[in-house]
Amino acid sequence: MGFDSHRTHTRKIGSAPGTLIDLPVTSPSRLWAVHYRGEEMHEHLDIDLDDARALVSADSVTWIHIQGQPDRRLLDRLGEVFDLHSLALEDVQSLVQRPKLDVYQEQLFAILNLPRWNGEGVELEQFNLFMGEGYVLSIHAGEEEVVQAVRRRMAKVRTRLRTHGADYLFYALMDLVVDQAFPVLETFGEEVEALEEVLLERPSRDLLSAIYQHKRNLMILRRQLWPTREVVSQLMRGANDEEYFAPDLQPFLQDLYDHTVHIMDLLETYRDVVASMLDVYLSSVSNRLNDIMRVLTMISTIFIPLTFIVGVYGMNFGNNTKSPWAMPELNWYYGYPLVWGVMLLIAAAMTIFFRRKGWLGGSR
Amino acid sequence: MGFDSHRTHTRKIGSAPGTLIDLPVTSPSRLWAVHYRGEEMHEHLDIDLDDARALVSADSVTWIHIQGQPDRRLLDRLGEVFDLHSLALEDVQSLVQRPKLDVYQEQLFAILNLPRWNGEGVELEQFNLFMGEGYVLSIHAGEEEVVQAVRRRMAKVRTRLRTHGADYLFYALMDLVVDQAFPVLETFGEEVEALEEVLLERPSRDLLSAIYQHKRNLMILRRQLWPTREVVSQLMRGANDEEYFAPDLQPFLQDLYDHTVHIMDLLETYRDVVASMLDVYLSSVSNRLNDIMRVLTMISTIFIPLTFIVGVYGMNFGNNTKSPWAMPELNWYYGYPLVWGVMLLIAAAMTIFFRRKGWLGGSR
Amino acid sequence: MGFDSHRTHTRKIGSAPGTLIDLPVTSPSRLWAVHYRGEEMHEHLDIDLDDARALVSADSVTWIHIQGQPDRRLLDRLGEVFDLHSLALEDVQSLVQRPKLDVYQEQLFAILNLPRWNGEGVELEQFNLFMGEGYVLSIHAGEEEVVQAVRRRMAKVRTRLRTHGADYLFYALMDLVVDQAFPVLETFGEEVEALEEVLLERPSRDLLSAIYQHKRNLMILRRQLWPTREVVSQLMRGANDEEYFAPDLQPFLQDLYDHTVHIMDLLETYRDVVASMLDVYLSSVSNRLNDIMRVLTMISTIFIPLTFIVGVYGMNFGNNTKSPWAMPELNWYYGYPLVWGVMLLIAAAMTIFFRRKGWLGGSR
Amino acid sequence: MGFDSHRTHTRKIGSAPGTLIDLPVTSPSRLWAVHYRGEEMHEHLDIDLDDARALVSADSVTWIHIQGQPDRRLLDRLGEVFDLHSLALEDVQSLVQRPKLDVYQEQLFAILNLPRWNGEGVELEQFNLFMGEGYVLSIHAGEEEVVQAVRRRMAKVRTRLRTHGADYLFYALMDLVVDQAFPVLETFGEEVEALEEVLLERPSRDLLSAIYQHKRNLMILRRQLWPTREVVSQLMRGANDEEYFAPDLQPFLQDLYDHTVHIMDLLETYRDVVASMLDVYLSSVSNRLNDIMRVLTMISTIFIPLTFIVGVYGMNFGNNTKSPWAMPELNWYYGYPLVWGVMLLIAAAMTIFFRRKGWLGGSR
Amino acid sequence: MGFDSHRTHTRKIGSAPGTLIDLPVTSPSRLWAVHYRGEEMHEHLDIDLDDARALVSADSVTWIHIQGQPDRRLLDRLGEVFDLHSLALEDVQSLVQRPKLDVYQEQLFAILNLPRWNGEGVELEQFNLFMGEGYVLSIHAGEEEVVQAVRRRMAKVRTRLRTHGADYLFYALMDLVVDQAFPVLETFGEEVEALEEVLLERPSRDLLSAIYQHKRNLMILRRQLWPTREVVSQLMRGANDEEYFAPDLQPFLQDLYDHTVHIMDLLETYRDVVASMLDVYLSSVSNRLNDIMRVLTMISTIFIPLTFIVGVYGMNFGNNTKSPWAMPELNWYYGYPLVWGVMLLIAAAMTIFFRRKGWLGGSR
Ligand SMILES: [Mg+2]
Ligand SMILES: [Mg+2]
Ligand SMILES: [Mg+2]
Ligand SMILES: [Mg+2]
Ligand SMILES: [Mg+2]
Ligand SMILES: [Mg+2]
Ligand SMILES: [Mg+2]
Ligand SMILES: [Mg+2]
Ligand SMILES: [Mg+2]
Ligand SMILES: [Mg+2]
Ligand SMILES: [Mg+2]
Ligand SMILES: [Mg+2]
Ligand SMILES: [Mg+2]
Ligand SMILES: [Mg+2]
Ligand SMILES: [Mg+2]
Ligand SMILES: [Mg+2]
Ligand SMILES: [Mg+2]
Ligand SMILES: [Mg+2]
Ligand SMILES: [Mg+2]
Ligand SMILES: [Mg+2]
Ligand SMILES: [Mg+2]
Ligand SMILES: [Mg+2]
Ligand SMILES: [Mg+2]
Ligand SMILES: [Mg+2]
Ligand SMILES: [Mg+2]
Ligand SMILES: [Mg+2]
Ligand SMILES: [Mg+2]
Ligand SMILES: [Mg+2]
Ligand SMILES: [Mg+2]
Ligand SMILES: [Mg+2]
Ligand SMILES: [Mg+2]
Repeated sequence: MGFDSHRTHTRKIGSAPGTLIDLPVTSPSRLWAVHYRGEEMHEHLDIDLDDARALVSADSVTWIHIQGQPDRRLLDRLGEVFDLHSLALEDVQSLVQRPKLDVYQEQLFAILNLPRWNGEGVELEQFNLFMGEGYVLSIHAGEEEVVQAVRRRMAKVRTRLRTHGADYLFYALMDLVVDQAFPVLETFGEEVEALEEVLLERPSRDLLSAIYQHKRNLMILRRQLWPTREVVSQLMRGANDEEYFAPDLQPFLQDLYDHTVHIMDLLETYRDVVASMLDVYLSSVSNRLNDIMRVLTMISTIFIPLTFIVGVYGMNFGNNTKSPWAMPELNWYYGYPLVWGVMLLIAAAMTIFFRRKGWLGGSR
Repeated sequence: MGFDSHRTHTRKIGSAPGTLIDLPVTSPSRLWAVHYRGEEMHEHLDIDLDDARALVSADSVTWIHIQGQPDRRLLDRLGEVFDLHSLALEDVQSLVQRPKLDVYQEQLFAILNLPRWNGEGVELEQFNLFMGEGYVLSIHAGEEEVVQAVRRRMAKVRTRLRTHGADYLFYALMDLVVDQAFPVLETFGEEVEALEEVLLERPSRDLLSAIYQHKRNLMILRRQLWPTREVVSQLMRGANDEEYFAPDLQPFLQDLYDHTVHIMDLLETYRDVVASMLDVYLSSVSNRLNDIMRVLTMISTIFIPLTFIVGVYGMNFGNNTKSPWAMPELNWYYGYPLVWGVMLLIAAAMTIFFRRKGWLGGSR
Repeated sequence: MGFDSHRTHTRKIGSAPGTLIDLPVTSPSRLWAVHYRGEEMHEHLDIDLDDARALVSADSVTWIHIQGQPDRRLLDRLGEVFDLHSLALEDVQSLVQRPKLDVYQEQLFAILNLPRWNGEGVELEQFNLFMGEGYVLSIHAGEEEVVQAVRRRMAKVRTRLRTHGADYLFYALMDLVVDQAFPVLETFGEEVEALEEVLLERPSRDLLSAIYQHKRNLMILRRQLWPTREVVSQLMRGANDEEYFAPDLQPFLQDLYDHTVHIMDLLETYRDVVASMLDVYLSSVSNRLNDIMRVLTMISTIFIPLTFIVGVYGMNFGNNTKSPWAMPELNWYYGYPLVWGVMLLIAAAMTIFFRRKGWLGGSR
Repeated sequence: MGFDSHRTHTRKIGSAPGTLIDLPVTSPSRLWAVHYRGEEMHEHLDIDLDDARALVSADSVTWIHIQGQPDRRLLDRLGEVFDLHSLALEDVQSLVQRPKLDVYQEQLFAILNLPRWNGEGVELEQFNLFMGEGYVLSIHAGEEEVVQAVRRRMAKVRTRLRTHGADYLFYALMDLVVDQAFPVLETFGEEVEALEEVLLERPSRDLLSAIYQHKRNLMILRRQLWPTREVVSQLMRGANDEEYFAPDLQPFLQDLYDHTVHIMDLLETYRDVVASMLDVYLSSVSNRLNDIMRVLTMISTIFIPLTFIVGVYGMNFGNNTKSPWAMPELNWYYGYPLVWGVMLLIAAAMTIFFRRKGWLGGSR
Repeated sequence: MGFDSHRTHTRKIGSAPGTLIDLPVTSPSRLWAVHYRGEEMHEHLDIDLDDARALVSADSVTWIHIQGQPDRRLLDRLGEVFDLHSLALEDVQSLVQRPKLDVYQEQLFAILNLPRWNGEGVELEQFNLFMGEGYVLSIHAGEEEVVQAVRRRMAKVRTRLRTHGADYLFYALMDLVVDQAFPVLETFGEEVEALEEVLLERPSRDLLSAIYQHKRNLMILRRQLWPTREVVSQLMRGANDEEYFAPDLQPFLQDLYDHTVHIMDLLETYRDVVASMLDVYLSSVSNRLNDIMRVLTMISTIFIPLTFIVGVYGMNFGNNTKSPWAMPELNWYYGYPLVWGVMLLIAAAMTIFFRRKGWLGGSR
């Protein structure tokens, strides 16, 4: 996971706020709409923006969805047709927004980050939501169409989606986006538990890099998801005085809030656990160094005195046959076995010393 | 202790909020009810839900308890019979909720986590409490029936339980659940003190893993119990304007709040203490490495010069009898004892040097 | 200092809130009373509870003091005679309360922790204070009677204690308990400064355990005294609307608050300083290891090449007199002194190398 | 990046608040003005202060800009001509202010820090903004004229800059200054990612110094930019009751606020990531020490026993032909190859032992 | 810098609050007064307390200053003459107060800590300020008379000091005391930068102690100056409803507040920077250990195999002339040069191995 890119910002320094730029759009975006009132419901898969706008009325709900990153022309048209603020359109285009809620004259505008596990890490996709009278406009700058689940639920007549207004649809889409974090967190949790097992049983060197990567990604992820909590909280508090949300939706917003808090809790727990793992890794590296040094020390200290002794009898004083003081040991009848005996005694004494110090067993 | 499982969440992504799912329920749940008014009290051990509901009246108290995890069918029935919100039922089923308090139209709904020591760690069991007019409904997704203590106290006529309404019963059950933390904390405290003793007296390698496990479990436990404080605090503040609780219960809620704060204090103290232990463990590993290196260094530095000297007289220059410069020492009358003398001198000098450095005693 | 004991809590799980239990009381508690009005003052050293109660009137002050831990019977009687809430009595008995202030219908109830240096660590004694109309009831679960200082001051007629009501007495006792922290902190400060000196001049191994013990005790102490601040703050804020305290006592409460804040400041400073010491200790252990390794490395690297050289001339190729290539050096006239010359040169070169690296002086 | 210099403060201790001093001004400052009303717009590049003041009227906008650090004389004149508070002028001169917003009787006064990458680090330039009725006065104590971008946008007639009043100009300049942080942060982000790559692949010693420098600079930078957030937040809250800002500018202030929050988020993320890198660096140093020690230990422990053995047969007991106990091995027919065999066996056993310990591969 | 001394507190435990004690006063304090109204101003250098009091009137300003620590008698007299609260006098005497602001019936009472660099560290001197109607009473328990700067400014007739009342004088003295921190911080900043240079270029052992001392002193200093911020903030908020300060002084208080915040910012930056230095120091110690171990390992691993080889040919098997298996190498014509060849090869191979590992250059 990279830090988020500020290129959009950087390229626009000095230009007027709310200026859209021509960004390369790799794959074209698709637009569709769903319109429902009472038991009626119509899906419009090949519709243009103006026709979609024409569907909107105060006593029905129209859901317009754009999948993929809209190009500049489409954004300009969206602004005109739905009377969206140029700053909101700029935010839709920039793709590196923190989650936030803006209340404009005619619309509510929310930006969420949709986390997705891409096989080796987490990617965040920007999910934009506008709600005005009688319509919800959602723009998801990603490839996979996660909103299909909501569209499928909508097919049934007596579901809450169908019996409530645009506010419930707005909520249902936020709920969908927020819930995407759970499988990602599950994957994270499993990875952290796998790392823990490796850490405690056979800490390898690759672990260091893995722990660092996890710690870093959790720091970034937490910071990028954290404001979601505030968005939902604002929605709960603001729902009353702005009358955007029907009072009976309050428990649903509360439930959504619980989910965001739960997600933050898990992210913080993982972050703290991974931070501890780094300390434990350092400890286990030190422990291994101790093991190595113990082996070296034992071998060295046992053999160094013995090597000295054999060195003594390698001296050539024995050649001097004129002095009785010149290595008489060499001429003793049991000289050689005696030297072996002395050396074995020393080795045994050393071994007992090490056992007393507790250096022999793997216990310390 | 594992991180909490998000499987319930994960399996339901995209489904409508408030949707119950068919989870495998290993052991069936049991339902019983107690009904009391004034001096009368009846226990109904083999009652079905509708009969239990029929007992409820505004001038008596009915306590309905479900022991074990209710299956989907029972939850559906509970929702219908007691008019419970589908989001509340979903929370009862999910088992991984943070402690929280929800205020619905007709009920107060609290979720608590009941900590239990399972021999080697802490497990959390979800305890759900609903209070409506004239009744309390408790659902404990665990095996052991901890509420028996309250039922036994209820047997006596003149206890507060009997002379107060459903609000006191609701409080008494929360108090029971919160108090379950104390024996768990006592066990934790004893384990931490045992670890401390090991740490300061004979730090073994297993300690590292034990400290890590404790630190990690305390981090998780603290995060999962922390919201309990807020639940009780909400109950205290909300009791007045909602009139759920009689004014003379305020001191009891205050007492309950004191307990939750005390529990959090202890959890944080343990966490901080265990975090310090990791640092001290690292220090003691370094100290041990110092010990080992000191022994190695002493043995090596004493014998290396000596081994050099005996090596010198192992050189075969003495064979050259034609030069007076070729190792005359070998032919000195006291040559051999003299070499020993020099070597003993060197060893003594080294030992004095080490004693001066303070490397000989175990004091540094 | 142990973590605080939860045995009282643990033993009572499931019993009704406000239930007193029969605890073993090692030494009996003593009760005395002082009664004063205007210039009159009487001490009653051998008085029973009912007579003490009879002294109480709205226009005089009666101070009833219990020294030592009251047994269950006395607590029951206290509850009846002074109309105390059973939850307050339970708190008096449990001895492990956090400092707190409870406002009951007829009394103000404060719990404070009185710190005392027991020679090697800090002990906390619970000090309970009740104030009702015309009386103050103090219960000190400790052996030494610290309140004697207040009683002595009371002997003088024109002191504030005699010219003010029960509120000033209540304040004066809190002030006395809070001030007990200063000598304890002075002792702590001296110990910390002594540790610092040892740390910077001759870090010994015992230091590690001492630092850990201090860090741990400061963490526990801070957490157990911290709520005192809130108690005094509540008293200051609450004094007005509850009219428990005369307005001219406000500066005294402010002064008391200053003291508690000062105590917390000192505790936090000590804790932070001790935490830094652990890091510095780790550094100095590493420095010592460096010293040891430097000595080993110097001795080894000087002698290892020399030992190799003498080994070369210990080879028996010289025995082969048939080849001119077979160790002719052995037969050179100045062979032996030349070898010594080469070895001295190598040793000198090594020494210069080490001096350049800065490994010889103790400066790095 | 140095800590900010307090010389201005230090030199003035004891002088009256609001006293300007004669500071050496290296390059002279330049002043120009732009005046616009409806479709009219005039640029005045060679104008003096009094003439600029004369342009100001309630129904037009005059923008006066000073590029470079104004000298004392100019500041004095500014104070007189625009009726600025002497404390504000003192702040303009001191150059080491934290970002802040002061509301004076007749003006709004904002100080911002403009970050600029100077090739190897970040420099902060003070940007001062005054807004009074009908005018904006900007003073930028830097060399490069960043405000040119705004002046260029102003050239077009129908831009918001031209159709709004002084408030929008004030906002547009703040937006410009705040946005300067993005390219700086982009550079920082690239450097941090480069350091990460070095850290995980080939940690060199220079890395330590680089990490430290980054950590330190991020700490300083964060602290110096942090108050910007509060400045914008004050502007948003204060805009209503002070009526300095037209209501339709609220979304623009909100957008500005989002940018400052985003910048702080990035700074904190970088700081946290760099802090983790230090820990990982320490770990990798320890790992490298382990590698080195493992090689030393393997070579030593394999050869030390072998060297002992060859030492044994270097002893001169064999010269003693009178004793059958005196090294009979030397005279065995296969003695020499046997010794080699034994030594190869020992070496093989050692190698197997090390392989089992996992010390041979680079895997641990 | 020592922790602050609690002896004053300790000596007084049990005595009545507001009791002055007889402290040894080493040098006598001096008192002088300045009295001004409109263009008149009189200095009274040899005045006693009662005469000073007599100067005070509602339509003039009297500044009474006491330099040095007043003895008990003077404090008692001050209390009587100016009607000061005994708790305030106690605070003046105790010298270890945190900065604070107390609002009494007739006076405003502020305590500030004046930091002073004493050559090797920071000392705090208590500065007490009373303001009542028509007078300011300042007590500075230090030797050097820092207030002379204000007195000198007062000599000019048209300064703000002369044209405003006691409130401006009170502010001007606070400003003077707060500004004393800047030269101290400048000195600190220079020392920290000097330490940084040493750290990154040639980390010596003395550095550890220096870093620790700085970290510790910054922690203490920050804690002792921190409440200053709150004092000024209280003054700003309280000025309106208490009417102690004229409304046009609000910008001056704001300016003072900016200074205290700036000081805290610098202290926290220094503290964080010094804390990082400790980590970096630890790293560089580890790096140095790596250097040392690398040298040892290279020398050892090159020579250990060579020493083994020469040991082999030191064995006395060659004496056994009866077996063709007994060291035939000794009798080869080119045996000796061959052994040298093999040894040089091994040394070369080892050197290449080390170069590949990157252990030869100083780069890693
Ligand atoms: Mg912009
Ligand atoms: Mg983002
Ligand atoms: Mg926002
Ligand atoms: Mg959801
Ligand atoms: Mg839920
Ligand atoms: Mg859901
Ligand atoms: Mg949970
Ligand atoms: Mg909640
Ligand atoms: Mg309880
Ligand atoms: Mg209690
Ligand atoms: Mg806390
Ligand atoms: Mg740590
Ligand atoms: Mg209880
Ligand atoms: Mg306690
Ligand atoms: Mg409390
Ligand atoms: Mg006191
Ligand atoms: Mg005081
Ligand atoms: Mg100033
Ligand atoms: Mg600055
Ligand atoms: Mg400010
Ligand atoms: Mg911007
Ligand atoms: Mg934006
Ligand atoms: Mg934050
Ligand atoms: Mg760290
Ligand atoms: Mg006092
Ligand atoms: Mg102080
Ligand atoms: Mg205060
Ligand atoms: Mg100032
Ligand atoms: Mg200023
Ligand atoms: Mg701060
Ligand atoms: Mg650290």
